[in-house]
Amino acid sequence: MTSAQQPLTGKRVAILAADGVEDVEYTQSRAAAEQAGAEIHLVSLKPGEIQSMNHDVNPANRYPVDRTVDKADASDYDGLVLPGGTVNPDRLRMNSDAMAFVTAFFQQEKPVAAICHGPWSLVESGMVKGRTVTSYPSLRTDIRNAGGNWVDQPVQVDNGLVTSRKPGDLPAFCEKLVEEFAEGRHAGQLASV
Amino acid sequence: MTSAQQPLTGKRVAILAADGVEDVEYTQSRAAAEQAGAEIHLVSLKPGEIQSMNHDVNPANRYPVDRTVDKADASDYDGLVLPGGTVNPDRLRMNSDAMAFVTAFFQQEKPVAAICHGPWSLVESGMVKGRTVTSYPSLRTDIRNAGGNWVDQPVQVDNGLVTSRKPGDLPAFCEKLVEEFAEGRHAGQLASV
Repeated sequence: MTSAQQPLTGKRVAILAADGVEDVEYTQSRAAAEQAGAEIHLVSLKPGEIQSMNHDVNPANRYPVDRTVDKADASDYDGLVLPGGTVNPDRLRMNSDAMAFVTAFFQQEKPVAAICHGPWSLVESGMVKGRTVTSYPSLRTDIRNAGGNWVDQPVQVDNGLVTSRKPGDLPAFCEKLVEEFAEGRHAGQLASV
Repeated sequence: MTSAQQPLTGKRVAILAADGVEDVEYTQSRAAAEQAGAEIHLVSLKPGEIQSMNHDVNPANRYPVDRTVDKADASDYDGLVLPGGTVNPDRLRMNSDAMAFVTAFFQQEKPVAAICHGPWSLVESGMVKGRTVTSYPSLRTDIRNAGGNWVDQPVQVDNGLVTSRKPGDLPAFCEKLVEEFAEGRHAGQLASV
């Protein structure tokens, strides 16, 4: 152990995203976890690269996929990040491997952090039921209809589940993400399973 | 009356869309209604133009807005078209004027046609409750959670409410759109109001 040990040293974090991910939500959450010492894998639907966007409709960058979700196992990770961008979770939620991957983090009581449109994957997997969360406001009705308690906050922490509304909330989101991921397993994640 | 009278002659149709509308869903539904004799207004959130996309992530064209939704009145129209594109309804559903505009067509028993991600506006306005509809498959869970009966069909007609899944369904969607809009008011539209 060195004096430079950081809160996420030795932990591995999966970021699950597809084409359409909002660029800054991917890059800033990744940077926050990396700077805290975590090893990061970008997990996606297909091998190759994903296309990120700025403000949903302007193509931004392409990022290499580290592992496809059909070959990824939540047991190999200590936490999951679900960035937004409207199109990204819209594609993830139609993929049963992706939804099983999300559900497994909750079953294994591991921390999950979702921002902006990312919580759609919690709606699709049924994991938002009984949880207090925030999101981009367009998801409010979908979250409530799925049994979640939607709140309008820059960041909401519910027992290992960290949620935020939009890119402007990234500083608060990243701070809580590192804090909850450092704490490790949260029994409360089982609430909706 | 001329011998060239067409099914939608004398009718006025609103297409409600915002940035991110899927290009072919806007242009083909518009062309079908125009060729059937209707006058069309593109109604949107802001004056100016909207940005259309191909396959959600590739910018396509820009189209002039005919009327902003805060100044539009459903009483001036005989039918409403809700095209898709993931980002488009995501923006519409956060605007209370847009959702009131959608609801008014149902209250006035006027036909409504929604394709792909367009039905999110029916979820947000509560108008999908008790109705049998299809949509892009990513909306399936949101529609069921909102009380709708989701089916996987190229086109579904439920008493003046026409829905389809994706661009590939446009021929069937446009045919039924013209047919239902020509029929005029449908008392069944009040089912969910």
